[in-house]
Amino acid sequence: MEFFVRSEKKYNPVTPKIVDELKQIVGSRYVIYGDEEKLQPYSHDEVPGAEYAHMPEAVVRPGTAEEIAAIMKLANREMIPVTPRGAGSGLSGGAVPVCGGIVVLFDRMNKILELDRENMMIVVEPGVVTNEINEFLKEHGLFYAAYPMSLETCYIGGNVAENAGGAKAVKYGVTSRYVVGLDVVTPTGEIVELGGKLIKDVSGYNMVQLMVGSEGTLGLFTKITLKLLPLPKAQVDLLCLFKNIEEAIKAVPKIQTIGGIIPTSIEFMNKTAIKASCEYLNESIPYQQAGAMLLITVDGPDEQQIEREYESIGQLCLDAGAIEVYVADNATTSERIWKVRRNIGEAYNVISRRQSAEDIVVPPAAIPAMAAKLQELSDKYDVMIPCFGHAGDGNLHSRIVSQPWWSDEKWHKVLPKILDELYRLTAEVGGRISGEHGIGHKKKNYLPYVVSENYIDMLRTIKRAMDPNNILNPGKIFDL
Amino acid sequence: MEFFVRSEKKYNPVTPKIVDELKQIVGSRYVIYGDEEKLQPYSHDEVPGAEYAHMPEAVVRPGTAEEIAAIMKLANREMIPVTPRGAGSGLSGGAVPVCGGIVVLFDRMNKILELDRENMMIVVEPGVVTNEINEFLKEHGLFYAAYPMSLETCYIGGNVAENAGGAKAVKYGVTSRYVVGLDVVTPTGEIVELGGKLIKDVSGYNMVQLMVGSEGTLGLFTKITLKLLPLPKAQVDLLCLFKNIEEAIKAVPKIQTIGGIIPTSIEFMNKTAIKASCEYLNESIPYQQAGAMLLITVDGPDEQQIEREYESIGQLCLDAGAIEVYVADNATTSERIWKVRRNIGEAYNVISRRQSAEDIVVPPAAIPAMAAKLQELSDKYDVMIPCFGHAGDGNLHSRIVSQPWWSDEKWHKVLPKILDELYRLTAEVGGRISGEHGIGHKKKNYLPYVVSENYIDMLRTIKRAMDPNNILNPGKIFDL
Repeated sequence: MEFFVRSEKKYNPVTPKIVDELKQIVGSRYVIYGDEEKLQPYSHDEVPGAEYAHMPEAVVRPGTAEEIAAIMKLANREMIPVTPRGAGSGLSGGAVPVCGGIVVLFDRMNKILELDRENMMIVVEPGVVTNEINEFLKEHGLFYAAYPMSLETCYIGGNVAENAGGAKAVKYGVTSRYVVGLDVVTPTGEIVELGGKLIKDVSGYNMVQLMVGSEGTLGLFTKITLKLLPLPKAQVDLLCLFKNIEEAIKAVPKIQTIGGIIPTSIEFMNKTAIKASCEYLNESIPYQQAGAMLLITVDGPDEQQIEREYESIGQLCLDAGAIEVYVADNATTSERIWKVRRNIGEAYNVISRRQSAEDIVVPPAAIPAMAAKLQELSDKYDVMIPCFGHAGDGNLHSRIVSQPWWSDEKWHKVLPKILDELYRLTAEVGGRISGEHGIGHKKKNYLPYVVSENYIDMLRTIKRAMDPNNILNPGKIFDL
Repeated sequence: MEFFVRSEKKYNPVTPKIVDELKQIVGSRYVIYGDEEKLQPYSHDEVPGAEYAHMPEAVVRPGTAEEIAAIMKLANREMIPVTPRGAGSGLSGGAVPVCGGIVVLFDRMNKILELDRENMMIVVEPGVVTNEINEFLKEHGLFYAAYPMSLETCYIGGNVAENAGGAKAVKYGVTSRYVVGLDVVTPTGEIVELGGKLIKDVSGYNMVQLMVGSEGTLGLFTKITLKLLPLPKAQVDLLCLFKNIEEAIKAVPKIQTIGGIIPTSIEFMNKTAIKASCEYLNESIPYQQAGAMLLITVDGPDEQQIEREYESIGQLCLDAGAIEVYVADNATTSERIWKVRRNIGEAYNVISRRQSAEDIVVPPAAIPAMAAKLQELSDKYDVMIPCFGHAGDGNLHSRIVSQPWWSDEKWHKVLPKILDELYRLTAEVGGRISGEHGIGHKKKNYLPYVVSENYIDMLRTIKRAMDPNNILNPGKIFDL
């Protein structure tokens, strides 16, 4: 498998003369060049495996949109690729400079610029750590609803670039629902303001939504306006044990159709996943009799309302065959359960570092079929595939984990076969290969498994039109 | 003012030979040609004024995506413009064939194809009347939440093309939030499947959202997959009287931040608007002491929940200075109030047919400032500007209505001046010229008032790349 098919375009190297120009644009102290050790951290994101890494030639740390525009003009003039990078917490290699060139960091653009209470919006720079937004908003009774699981490290700019999801997407949707305004620098170095403090707007194409999830290939974000929601004043978690995944998933639409309730989160975990995490944490939540578990959160403006909701959900789950339903109505118990959910990945990291963190997404009703197929794959190739994820939106974090005793060689021989089968099976049920991590360069070669060539051609048409020299984050999502 | 700046492109006429080809594609009985009387209804939408109309040369009524693709291939080969048309209920001239050529109707593609209860999605053809979807869904305990006020006549395909809004957007958002899958025929005649039965999906750019609201200029929709929600089981309306618009609007964010409640609708009307509609309907809802009124709807899974919500909202409104709060907790009273809201437009139609139905959108907190400016405009030019709309999303349906005794000549001289000022004022508060009606060709010349030239250039880049011959709905939104 070839990971880095260089585009046909011939790029030029970053010469000392160009470095001088970069220094003039952003200031000498904000350019890293010629120092392998200092450049190395920017050669990879959170995808494990040296084969996914690539060294940048220079790293720049601009402080304004104007500086970024100047960098892009320079890069177009000199034919040098530019890769934007948030916190580097990505899981698809989106921030890896696969064609070399310049990496643009946003760590200096990290200010919360304005809280607009009347319009319930916040204006931030892209380098703000996502969690800081909600920490800042707490005292104002507001919150940003679309933060992902990695909120304590990731940047909001990266969330927008990847259209990050998270556990609360069932009720609150993903990042795209909250981005109302976006200042961008285009691939050719123009500064453009998209959207604004507007909840509705049909004055031209929805360029904001084209930018959200474009994985840094269509624009560099310099200012982000987010819609906020009232901070829920009460929250309860339900832990519902089922015999197997099929029975668990069948309960999900019933909560919404019969109960008329849209929970905040509907997470599921199979027994293997829970067991590994509980053992890793030395935790003892009840799961032994169950083959699968739903972790359901409801939140709302007051305790009486959510009490009615969780009682109704609990009853519906029991009616749908749940073995047992536990209520976690205090922060300590809630945190214990969520910690189990969040640490599944870490638990498997201890077992083996040879992993592939997948995030396929399927129509929600197809989760049981997909889970059965994952079990078959796991048996066939003798790998571990803990099955967990967001049942409410069909997003499965099926992580493929090597047996600890395997050699690197064996892992690299077997993994492509497993992924190939996994993605084919995903396509068969109408799914896609990424629900929230993005395609980056890690999954680029698999995109044709789940979408048509006509669709990829459409993406190419857009990319070529907006970035004629293929300067901005080349080699991602698809090859030109 | 020039309404129809023909693009530089030279189009060819629809000849009898081409009509023969069209007949071969869709069948003879589905082509209208050479009959002025039968073609005339397709020369306009709901925008009044002959200056906004333009005759098509031929009208075709395809039944499949393949037929539409063949029409587009033919049109590109022969350089003939093609304009897609839904129910013709648009308010910006989007379905008017301003460059002549072929109008494509969707009235034959009017089937509900599939209700997927497990995934809570519905698959429909574009020619389904929007209201039929919810009529069909009722017995299944589900509903499509983003329908606009014109739901009884409009087509869902038109809703998607215009990204239609509606009164419930505060809680439920607009059309874009619910479109998860879209089969399209591209301007060059390719059939492409975008999205799917997926709630999350980051496998490539979000082409679905680029298509939603593109006003029929980037693709013709042939199949639409919509996300559904549980049908609320209870609903209550509150009628809150305030001294003036400013006090009314100031209460809006308090409901959300202090109350922690997101109402379904927050509509407002000034006294002039209510009075006209009440007189028109011979209705007697209480409003005499008030300068402005909020009509607030809450809905939810049961009566106890919404009772708590509406009591809390009522109290917050009183605390914020409301003169009186009335509760409409039965269908008859609710309908009486909503009828007043819905009939403001009709009431003014009786006064004068010379009107311009505007739907500017501003940051919600800017509504009082904008309302004051509308009052100034009304005084300055001696026209009626009833002020009403969606307070929760800043979308003002400020309708400019001629005095009944004015001449056509005077109206046509004064209106452009008013619109010019209106849009400039809108731009000053960070607003846009359309929240849900679209730009079409009616507002095309005003788009540069509210967005930058760089932004319009970005739209042109996309349009040129996707429609190199400028065949699909030319002359809309912007000139190439």
